[in-house]
Amino acid sequence: MKWCRYKDERRTTFGIVEDDLIWEVDGSPFHEHRRTGRQHHLSSAHLDVPVIPPNFYAMGMNFQKHLDWAAGRFGTSASPPERADMGYRSPNALVPTESPIVIPGDSIGPVQYEGELVAVIGRQAKGLSRTDALNCVFGYTLGNDVSERGWQFKDRTLWRAKNSDTFKPMGPLIETDLDPDHQHISVRVNGETVSAFDTAEAIFDLSTCISRLSRYITLFPGDVIWMGTDGATEPDLKAGDLVEIENAAIGILRNRVERAAVSPGAGD
Amino acid sequence: MKWCRYKDERRTTFGIVEDDLIWEVDGSPFHEHRRTGRQHHLSSAHLDVPVIPPNFYAMGMNFQKHLDWAAGRFGTSASPPERADMGYRSPNALVPTESPIVIPGDSIGPVQYEGELVAVIGRQAKGLSRTDALNCVFGYTLGNDVSERGWQFKDRTLWRAKNSDTFKPMGPLIETDLDPDHQHISVRVNGETVSAFDTAEAIFDLSTCISRLSRYITLFPGDVIWMGTDGATEPDLKAGDLVEIENAAIGILRNRVERAAVSPGAGD
Repeated sequence: MKWCRYKDERRTTFGIVEDDLIWEVDGSPFHEHRRTGRQHHLSSAHLDVPVIPPNFYAMGMNFQKHLDWAAGRFGTSASPPERADMGYRSPNALVPTESPIVIPGDSIGPVQYEGELVAVIGRQAKGLSRTDALNCVFGYTLGNDVSERGWQFKDRTLWRAKNSDTFKPMGPLIETDLDPDHQHISVRVNGETVSAFDTAEAIFDLSTCISRLSRYITLFPGDVIWMGTDGATEPDLKAGDLVEIENAAIGILRNRVERAAVSPGAGD
Repeated sequence: MKWCRYKDERRTTFGIVEDDLIWEVDGSPFHEHRRTGRQHHLSSAHLDVPVIPPNFYAMGMNFQKHLDWAAGRFGTSASPPERADMGYRSPNALVPTESPIVIPGDSIGPVQYEGELVAVIGRQAKGLSRTDALNCVFGYTLGNDVSERGWQFKDRTLWRAKNSDTFKPMGPLIETDLDPDHQHISVRVNGETVSAFDTAEAIFDLSTCISRLSRYITLFPGDVIWMGTDGATEPDLKAGDLVEIENAAIGILRNRVERAAVSPGAGD
């Protein structure tokens, strides 16, 4: 089943997608809900981010070929992490498909894409075993973990490197029926495939991540876990580029890159 | 003016506090709202966390005497950060006043308190100058940035060290009329004052933090910025301890420490 969240003239609402139609839903997929009977054409709908997460988790450093590539380009360590330690992102940075990625005017660059599978939690859960871990997942969407590499290595935290406004495209839809451990994710820049990997290559699979996270942390409906990217994340992005993250079951997350003017008082 | 958020038999709602009374409010302080005319006694109310933040920011390393103390006890650097780079915490960890702090059963310790002033954002804002920065603030509350120092220095991120469930007590109220740059914050453990500092000692004041944050990031109503702690954060906490963070205008954030049994499958 496919779920979306979209804006119409009245409000932002959830919908169930069937073929080219969106069936409007009252309520949320995580709680009580019902179809209203109203429908819209998917092709002309204004899709919003499919969920605003109460908590926003990200598995950095979760694919060996990405670590190897980063070691070569940025001189970082290629050693895999010993444990599934979670990172955080922030909802301010979320934008939906078809919404621009805006590089801040004073970015020192390079700015790069990271195509990722995203798990959306469906029910409150704590203390899950690996065997039970996926029972708390509602579905899956795609994320682009846009990263300003200059700030990533220069700042004390990842705040603006990974969480500047518009740096977290997520969407287009949530697909509920999907095996998270065997998904092909590909990235195109201006129509050319520049990245392609399978989630089977993850250092820590989703069951391991959820089991470890939920040992200390209660998961809530709508929380998201971004699973990391593999391989190189080149070419560096520039204004005008069109970035598409694709998975056969979920669809295409499509965002054009812009660059803001340097704002007064900026600089560092 | 003082605002709170509390649970009654029907729901969780905001209220305005006057003397020992809570006046129930329909709506939120950040949007349209009105007093319903219903009132409760503050002393018998079940206070909840005063706001669930859409985005949760924290200024680590923001007081020199805290850096000096940590350098002595943990061997960390005493150099102040060059810029106000934000950290993140996660709402899963929030608990209100009078709710227990639960140390995970497999904690390696030490676990410590950090008493902090917390700014609550009142309106959407971006690109604020230092001069205009405080105009977006709705009010102030208190936070206890509970930290598992063993995990803080061992893990790749601060996820469980700072964000394990119950590790972020916040409250008891929001005070809207207060000068954030001249507030005395004190901490008592089992009735004895163990920490006391003035926010005037901050390396980066709130105006600087908001101005820098809002250069890249849109602030939203309900977002919180925790401003960091000063000095030592000892003694180490143990089950049974009562931790109180106090400010004359805001009140007392009071939480008792418990320790969970070791959960099956835990260990590291």
